[in-house]
Amino acid sequence: MRFFSDNAAPVHPKVMEAIAAANRIDTAYDGDEWSRKLDGAFSDLFGKQVRAFWVTTGTAANCIALAALCPPYRGILCHMDAHIEVDEAGAPGFFTGGAKLALLEGAGAKISVDAARTACDLIRKDVHQVQPAALSITNATEYGLVYTPDETAALGDLCRARGLGFHVDGARFANAVASLGCSPADLSWKAGVDALSFGFVKNGGLSAEVLIFFRTDLAAASHYRRKRGGHLLSKGRYLAAQILAMLEGEVWLRNARAANEAAARLAAAAGAGRLLLPVQVNEVFVRVSADEAAALRAKGFDFYDWGPGEARLVTSWDSDPAAVDALAAAIRAL
Amino acid sequence: MRFFSDNAAPVHPKVMEAIAAANRIDTAYDGDEWSRKLDGAFSDLFGKQVRAFWVTTGTAANCIALAALCPPYRGILCHMDAHIEVDEAGAPGFFTGGAKLALLEGAGAKISVDAARTACDLIRKDVHQVQPAALSITNATEYGLVYTPDETAALGDLCRARGLGFHVDGARFANAVASLGCSPADLSWKAGVDALSFGFVKNGGLSAEVLIFFRTDLAAASHYRRKRGGHLLSKGRYLAAQILAMLEGEVWLRNARAANEAAARLAAAAGAGRLLLPVQVNEVFVRVSADEAAALRAKGFDFYDWGPGEARLVTSWDSDPAAVDALAAAIRAL
Amino acid sequence: MRFFSDNAAPVHPKVMEAIAAANRIDTAYDGDEWSRKLDGAFSDLFGKQVRAFWVTTGTAANCIALAALCPPYRGILCHMDAHIEVDEAGAPGFFTGGAKLALLEGAGAKISVDAARTACDLIRKDVHQVQPAALSITNATEYGLVYTPDETAALGDLCRARGLGFHVDGARFANAVASLGCSPADLSWKAGVDALSFGFVKNGGLSAEVLIFFRTDLAAASHYRRKRGGHLLSKGRYLAAQILAMLEGEVWLRNARAANEAAARLAAAAGAGRLLLPVQVNEVFVRVSADEAAALRAKGFDFYDWGPGEARLVTSWDSDPAAVDALAAAIRAL
Amino acid sequence: MRFFSDNAAPVHPKVMEAIAAANRIDTAYDGDEWSRKLDGAFSDLFGKQVRAFWVTTGTAANCIALAALCPPYRGILCHMDAHIEVDEAGAPGFFTGGAKLALLEGAGAKISVDAARTACDLIRKDVHQVQPAALSITNATEYGLVYTPDETAALGDLCRARGLGFHVDGARFANAVASLGCSPADLSWKAGVDALSFGFVKNGGLSAEVLIFFRTDLAAASHYRRKRGGHLLSKGRYLAAQILAMLEGEVWLRNARAANEAAARLAAAAGAGRLLLPVQVNEVFVRVSADEAAALRAKGFDFYDWGPGEARLVTSWDSDPAAVDALAAAIRAL
Repeated sequence: MRFFSDNAAPVHPKVMEAIAAANRIDTAYDGDEWSRKLDGAFSDLFGKQVRAFWVTTGTAANCIALAALCPPYRGILCHMDAHIEVDEAGAPGFFTGGAKLALLEGAGAKISVDAARTACDLIRKDVHQVQPAALSITNATEYGLVYTPDETAALGDLCRARGLGFHVDGARFANAVASLGCSPADLSWKAGVDALSFGFVKNGGLSAEVLIFFRTDLAAASHYRRKRGGHLLSKGRYLAAQILAMLEGEVWLRNARAANEAAARLAAAAGAGRLLLPVQVNEVFVRVSADEAAALRAKGFDFYDWGPGEARLVTSWDSDPAAVDALAAAIRAL
Repeated sequence: MRFFSDNAAPVHPKVMEAIAAANRIDTAYDGDEWSRKLDGAFSDLFGKQVRAFWVTTGTAANCIALAALCPPYRGILCHMDAHIEVDEAGAPGFFTGGAKLALLEGAGAKISVDAARTACDLIRKDVHQVQPAALSITNATEYGLVYTPDETAALGDLCRARGLGFHVDGARFANAVASLGCSPADLSWKAGVDALSFGFVKNGGLSAEVLIFFRTDLAAASHYRRKRGGHLLSKGRYLAAQILAMLEGEVWLRNARAANEAAARLAAAAGAGRLLLPVQVNEVFVRVSADEAAALRAKGFDFYDWGPGEARLVTSWDSDPAAVDALAAAIRAL
Repeated sequence: MRFFSDNAAPVHPKVMEAIAAANRIDTAYDGDEWSRKLDGAFSDLFGKQVRAFWVTTGTAANCIALAALCPPYRGILCHMDAHIEVDEAGAPGFFTGGAKLALLEGAGAKISVDAARTACDLIRKDVHQVQPAALSITNATEYGLVYTPDETAALGDLCRARGLGFHVDGARFANAVASLGCSPADLSWKAGVDALSFGFVKNGGLSAEVLIFFRTDLAAASHYRRKRGGHLLSKGRYLAAQILAMLEGEVWLRNARAANEAAARLAAAAGAGRLLLPVQVNEVFVRVSADEAAALRAKGFDFYDWGPGEARLVTSWDSDPAAVDALAAAIRAL
Repeated sequence: MRFFSDNAAPVHPKVMEAIAAANRIDTAYDGDEWSRKLDGAFSDLFGKQVRAFWVTTGTAANCIALAALCPPYRGILCHMDAHIEVDEAGAPGFFTGGAKLALLEGAGAKISVDAARTACDLIRKDVHQVQPAALSITNATEYGLVYTPDETAALGDLCRARGLGFHVDGARFANAVASLGCSPADLSWKAGVDALSFGFVKNGGLSAEVLIFFRTDLAAASHYRRKRGGHLLSKGRYLAAQILAMLEGEVWLRNARAANEAAARLAAAAGAGRLLLPVQVNEVFVRVSADEAAALRAKGFDFYDWGPGEARLVTSWDSDPAAVDALAAAIRAL
């Protein structure tokens, strides 16, 4: 009964079927019939002409986007707990050619407009300091909080006012959309977002994430950056097919809802007293003593410690209701 | 009846089965049970302790290897027709941080020891010129020629004498091994090779190539470079499983033999008069006039033109014997 | 009466004479008779075999050193107010190929051993986080504090224990040596320092700083990095001559003492109540209201505001005693 | 009697005077009164609004220009003997973040429009090949040939037609202007040039070269790139003063003429039979046997061998007429 990461979850059967169905000869790279459908499929989903690139990791999606938005000699504002800062081994520095991440604080890995504005104001406007070129947020955040459409739009307004590009790391974008009940457009281009890393792997995919450019002028260079980063797979049809399968019948949204609902059941079991943060998507951060954590593990539940007296429980699209109920009961029984 | 690229071929059934069999929960990244077997599996295959990294493209394998062998301020000797020079969108410059490719000539994209030695000698040993740090060859070459174990070892000797690292782009390494009837060790570490990009995708895989380090001291940094390049997939088990399936029962070798044999049949049909180069693996370069090429296409054969009056025919692991025979007959009939 | 920066000071007459004396034909780059003396001159000064490279800026010295100590995929621990972080426009990211600066806190831009140790401990030892490769401190710090030989050695011990390279940005190294009354060796290699940016420009030079490698194995690559960074001047003799003139008769030390003493007089005038930090070298940070600052400026004193109610006064090798006395009197009269 | 490099020549007395005259306090970096005059002085010289940046080396000027014209994922067309290719230790790869130099052939290091056009045509317009973004020529070339205004304009037209930026490495731009008797404008922006590295060091300067942007929109990013490359000297006034002194009274042009005329005398002495190339500026490439070279050296003449049976003689602004006459006589006497 594993609750340590949605990356550990298996692949959704529809995705497996789609991979099997793509197993025939076609044009290499992204010239195949599946890959050629991506722009259209995502333009439909977002209600706007977009450009969509498959890649195999969130790190690649994030960093190709950041390189499109930020030249080597400028910087990217992000949260100090952002995945791009703490979990990508310096990939933003690699892809951008040495651009700097300027780190902001904020509870639950969430950036407020005030924090972003203040950070901009504190940078001297001279040649000695790195000037920001972009803002990157994660929605849902690394701590499971969501930015609402209004909050996102307020950041988008700041970006426009300050001449910053706006990127969203959406490794759990589906979970955020499902949680908020809004449209994908509300959380992206309608709120001023220029580029979105739209995650599918944590949500039931095998190896395909999608980088969406709402500013389609950024696509041409990114096409080369993807190739140059070693991310243009020769049999790209097996990636595109995964994505199309996730879009078909809204598998992506249903999966995200399932994961969110499982987390909500755990949150209800934990109660406000144990929760470190509100539970808005599929991550539950709880206060548990070392003894309590050991007791849960003794019952067969696997999860990460998140600091002294804290644990992270992550649900996923396939979380077994029985296991969720069992964990909920075990938490209640602590 | 497509003969334009082995990248267009479908995935081998054993690989598809292995992906399906891996579809259960496990540790993320490369901590899963399949990924943890790779070092051992390739150490067995090569008869030597090696370190093996899955990646999704030959470009990633090549360039992580080159970055391990060459610092940003030095250079890599390679053929002017090498894939790393003409088909990777500048990825070596990206991964190495700006190292330079120094280009050598040679028929059929093959580098002679003399050419490599002369290139070294012509570089002034001063701070104004980029000093070489590595040699990279492709075996089989981009034009379908193989380096024998002796030829490879002679280049390996030169590398040791000049303090150069030695990399082999083995996108068609399996085809070279099959063609030569030697062991994988004979074409690699026994000949002084430090790092090998061992290709599986052209040969029946879906999305997994393997980077092998015979110099295991190069592995630690490469672990970080893979992550930093966005190449550490979170569900790595589906890559490792592909590779293990290709090794099991020597699928990799049988597939390569099948592709080579199909090419040999086409070569025999073409005859020495039409062949631009000897056919040693699964690529056949033939002289055909524009009219002849059109005639072949009219019969349903698809392939690339390779210059005025030249065409490239590529066979693959799944080349349909009937289609091969038909193409052979059509060539004979020209 | 300018107190805003030691960079604004003129060039010492001995340096000007040396430049004039070097104005004859000689070998280009660093093959001339002056440049060839640098290794010996600094080996004598430090009592140890060192390698010494002239460069034209502290940024170049710092960043060539950092690139020698840190590969692109690792990081450098430094203070959040370090010059390399806030005043070099991202140059460390450029020279290292994207390495990351990990920022530490500490009063007066000074890093304690505990802070450095804690920072190391907090980095997860996995492939997802950037692992540190070096520590960089500034001595004297950007806020005019010095690290004693013992404090430096304690950091040096930590570096050795954790496998970190140790760099000192010594833009005001001369001032630190003068303030502490120790030997240059005590503040550098005897304390475990691997590379030192030894500043001369703020201290009376025209355009020559020196990068010293105590670990001489780092010199070979740095020779190429200097050239590749566009920092190998063709008429290098005019740089080397400046440096030799500063070493001759200990001009560097006498200049630093003069600047420190001028600052001490200002500090005494300000008194403990106005001082934000102890004055140990040639920078004086004082509390002054906006009206007080205006009053000083009305009397002809020029300096930088350093935040609300704070000002920075910088003395230099040529600070006019009369102007210093006048400023001291004006501060007392506030 | 040294004829091996114009880099070895001393500094012109007017430049030395200007440095001495600048030796007083002023604003640091490029805020001083001399630096602030550069844009105006060069706008006057070129008859067009330009932006002018001092740097200390031709490599820095060239590579900041190339970084302004070429993103990391594209390439720069240049001659295979260009300084940026063979004498800058890979600096273009460093400054651009890994862009590729695509090498052209041509006698005397000169690129014809046909060669440039063909090179463009041969690059496949797909994502696998590096697409060119700029053309860089050297005028006068590394072999002492000049591009006329018409030849330059023809290349400029090609650049505009193909969407390429156009850079001129003008380490000996003064010599080219002097040789052709044209205006600086004729050889630069009127011929479609976007950026020019205008050399002063070989021509009598001490440490100041100038990077001129005719496309002033390229200046803003370059300001940061200069700083980030460690090329923003804190006492920039001593660089700007050198340049202004060279412009004053056309010292730059008179110096170049003197060097060219000295070379012309050597060329006349050598005669067409010995000359490898026409002598158009201050470099003379002659056929001399090993014995002849030894005989010249025995008489006290110093120069570089340039290959078997070939020597390079370089004159400079200060070439002693007596020494030139002596060498001319010695060549005649061979």
